[in-house]
Amino acid sequence: MNEHIAPVALERAYRLLNHGPTVLVSASHGGVDNVMAAAWSCALDFAPPKVTVVLDKATRTRALVEGSGHFALQVPNLGQLELTYQVGTRSLVDVPDKLAESGVELFRMDGFDVPLVAGSSAWLVCKVIPEPHIQQTYDLFIGEVVGAWADTRVFKDGHWRFEEAEDRWRSLHYIAGGHFYAIGEAAVVRED
Amino acid sequence: MNEHIAPVALERAYRLLNHGPTVLVSASHGGVDNVMAAAWSCALDFAPPKVTVVLDKATRTRALVEGSGHFALQVPNLGQLELTYQVGTRSLVDVPDKLAESGVELFRMDGFDVPLVAGSSAWLVCKVIPEPHIQQTYDLFIGEVVGAWADTRVFKDGHWRFEEAEDRWRSLHYIAGGHFYAIGEAAVVRED
Repeated sequence: MNEHIAPVALERAYRLLNHGPTVLVSASHGGVDNVMAAAWSCALDFAPPKVTVVLDKATRTRALVEGSGHFALQVPNLGQLELTYQVGTRSLVDVPDKLAESGVELFRMDGFDVPLVAGSSAWLVCKVIPEPHIQQTYDLFIGEVVGAWADTRVFKDGHWRFEEAEDRWRSLHYIAGGHFYAIGEAAVVRED
Repeated sequence: MNEHIAPVALERAYRLLNHGPTVLVSASHGGVDNVMAAAWSCALDFAPPKVTVVLDKATRTRALVEGSGHFALQVPNLGQLELTYQVGTRSLVDVPDKLAESGVELFRMDGFDVPLVAGSSAWLVCKVIPEPHIQQTYDLFIGEVVGAWADTRVFKDGHWRFEEAEDRWRSLHYIAGGHFYAIGEAAVVRED
């Protein structure tokens, strides 16, 4: 774990996802690690923090999530634009060497057996709350966040610092095809 | 309906929400209209398009959604920053004149009895797909998009045009307190 990574209090973990970034979803089961990109992920509750993520039945990652009962969401950044596109368009089913070819380097946090993508801005390790009906009908998974961390160069003291960080730290917001937007400038109604 | 509003093909409606904007949720029942802000809304499916939105039990809007079986999501913009903050922090329960005090002007599309917020960038009228268990347990509502429109000054030919539009059209991405970010610059991996 590099010196810039710090824990995020669980009651503030929702802030990592609140602005709607595209995320990387990672999971591991039976010795297989995988990572995919997902635009359809969202905060669901504050405390304990919960999240939703849509995992298509065709993805290898979904099988790993179902097998292990855990997944991680990470917030990628402009410096990971190509990586995010690659893990979102290639499948481990077709490209066994997908992670290496996409430039993904994995690490693990002590006490959590879920692979995390190095170089991301934030990480949320989640435990699946089983809801078989919505998993099957809508491909929608609910997770409780059991650990959260961020890189202090872009998220510090419970707040994103996009306006102070280098541009490479800006979060990615996927539209379609190869088109993303980076998060932009702060818009502040009230200081509090 | 002003001359700039155009229908969005339903199979492209997900693109209106794909980049994770904070939305305005509107609904009407028994002669009462209301609007609230929600950061926790997400696309769920392509065709037919579906969305999720978290509606706390304390909100008046939720009762209107439950009563009518319909809601609309709209994508607000930087020009609506104060309005978005106001409808997100005031409740119709405490402030009966909330909409007028927040500067909300409503209109309706022909054939859809759901109030829409004038001046937004995009609108999605949704029909609730009843899922009582997740509505009660997680405050999570699923809707099928039955109509979608956008202002052609910022969304045209199936694509957001933030980089060409005036800054006031940028979408809002809420963090906490009075803090939002506006969507930023395009980040394109592949032209296709």
